[in-house]
Amino acid sequence: MAKIEVTLGIDIGGTNTVLGFVTHSGSILAESSMTTNAAEPADLYVARLHVKIKEMLEKVGDTCELKGIGIGAPNANYYNGTVEFPPNLKWEGVTELVKMIRQYYNVPVAITNDANAAAIGEMKFGAAKGMKHFIVITLGTGLGSGIVVDGKMVYGHDGFAGELGHVIVDVNGRICGCGRRGCLETYVSAGGICRTVFELLAEHKEESELRNVGFNQLTSKMISDAALRGDTIALAAFEETGRILGLKLADAVTHTSPEAIILFGGLSAAGELLLVPTQRYMEEYMLNIFKNKVKLLPSGLREGNTAVLGASALMWNELEV
Amino acid sequence: MAKIEVTLGIDIGGTNTVLGFVTHSGSILAESSMTTNAAEPADLYVARLHVKIKEMLEKVGDTCELKGIGIGAPNANYYNGTVEFPPNLKWEGVTELVKMIRQYYNVPVAITNDANAAAIGEMKFGAAKGMKHFIVITLGTGLGSGIVVDGKMVYGHDGFAGELGHVIVDVNGRICGCGRRGCLETYVSAGGICRTVFELLAEHKEESELRNVGFNQLTSKMISDAALRGDTIALAAFEETGRILGLKLADAVTHTSPEAIILFGGLSAAGELLLVPTQRYMEEYMLNIFKNKVKLLPSGLREGNTAVLGASALMWNELEV
Repeated sequence: MAKIEVTLGIDIGGTNTVLGFVTHSGSILAESSMTTNAAEPADLYVARLHVKIKEMLEKVGDTCELKGIGIGAPNANYYNGTVEFPPNLKWEGVTELVKMIRQYYNVPVAITNDANAAAIGEMKFGAAKGMKHFIVITLGTGLGSGIVVDGKMVYGHDGFAGELGHVIVDVNGRICGCGRRGCLETYVSAGGICRTVFELLAEHKEESELRNVGFNQLTSKMISDAALRGDTIALAAFEETGRILGLKLADAVTHTSPEAIILFGGLSAAGELLLVPTQRYMEEYMLNIFKNKVKLLPSGLREGNTAVLGASALMWNELEV
Repeated sequence: MAKIEVTLGIDIGGTNTVLGFVTHSGSILAESSMTTNAAEPADLYVARLHVKIKEMLEKVGDTCELKGIGIGAPNANYYNGTVEFPPNLKWEGVTELVKMIRQYYNVPVAITNDANAAAIGEMKFGAAKGMKHFIVITLGTGLGSGIVVDGKMVYGHDGFAGELGHVIVDVNGRICGCGRRGCLETYVSAGGICRTVFELLAEHKEESELRNVGFNQLTSKMISDAALRGDTIALAAFEETGRILGLKLADAVTHTSPEAIILFGGLSAAGELLLVPTQRYMEEYMLNIFKNKVKLLPSGLREGNTAVLGASALMWNELEV
């Protein structure tokens, strides 16, 4: 019997690493996970990862043929096959992750950051199927982005293109983790909308269920739940988040003129709450020639682990070129 | 004797149309021009252009072989071969310029807007030779841009990518010709720096030779001349223009991570006056991972008609693919 061709998608998060064998059409045949253990050096991490992969390969036995490995990781550089100074892992300096994994497996290995992996996932299996020009915005703790032009991921000169979380909204604005002020992700992200709620609570007098929550306790989920119950402050926070995102998406459109922009990840699970104001402001701020042309879409990766699908799609995409 | 291969570069401006035969290495072998005559319909314009090209072909006689025609024009769409609703020409609606010119000449014909043509010109003959990722900013009456990723011009989904003159600096800012407010070109362009001078004259008390000039009489050349004489207001205008351009270039870098940004055209002829503050603020506003990596360069197209070189380069680029 012919073997089923699969790629292994690996998503390296700050807390957990998730792995899955994924077919060419995007079915996850086997999935597993392990703790990332942020305090562990990279070589020990890779040794543990190897054991995990071997286990999975034994489980699927002769039914699958492994064609390649795709990895999504923070601060990953596609060109160099490296993870460079990851802020949440104790991997020192530059880790040559692709080289280290290729010592164990004689198949193609590629790596990119999680937002780029998400973009390739949308292109192969999700909302951007068949599209040549699109942008994926990942909304989580921060704001990531992956830009595709002419069917190809834009990596830029140094491999770090697509950092839209750090376009500047206001040069005198909120302090960002990057050391500057007013970056988009200080407004539009899980943390950003919490900051906006606290600003609104300070400015306005309206009653709100969020007035009883401490800053460290507030989550974006609590804000969307409150908004769905009609809480004025929570609704205003989504409106303001959508306004700022819409403005910066209108700017992004003037760069690469995409067919669609896709919202992916945790905060975008708030659905219409964020999508509706973002769409409205994006159109309002859009240059005439682009108005009513650019679709704003939710992720098309609805089932299974979307990060694993993205990482695996990265490798499927490599194998096709 | 072997013929010299040339492409014909045509730059269609609001006032004049300039044409030239250009070799593969960027030498202009013959040049000519005619008035554009903005009030004339497109078919009459093309008929006149045909006469002009025939004249030029007769002049070079048997020495040259015409390999193709490249055109730079306002509101040109590369994908469709059209000029669409040009604001300064009386060409109605959508003009199928490539098709019309191909009726006369059985060679490849391509068209794009003047900023994209400038970018391809820099790539073939100028400051971006050998670069795969760069952005060209054209500074004239407005601000245009051409973005190159992986050695290819970014046209986007609809052919209109690279409109950085219309990223928004301030949603409540200056009225723009596009109907919106606060677009980059209302601050950074020949007209933009004049508006900045008038703002500075209103805000400050310093004496300035520009206090004796009417709004309609002020030119960017007068501002750079005054700045070179040490005029405080003129110098402050360049500082502020550089600050805003630097900020938006730092944003642009987060999109496509270019190796270089090249300043092209009239206002950039002010040289160090604009380049120095732009560079300083670009670095100040730049995300850490991009700091001190992106070159800011003047145009490398120093001799002859740069717009003709750009239009011709567009065709040379087509012939190579």
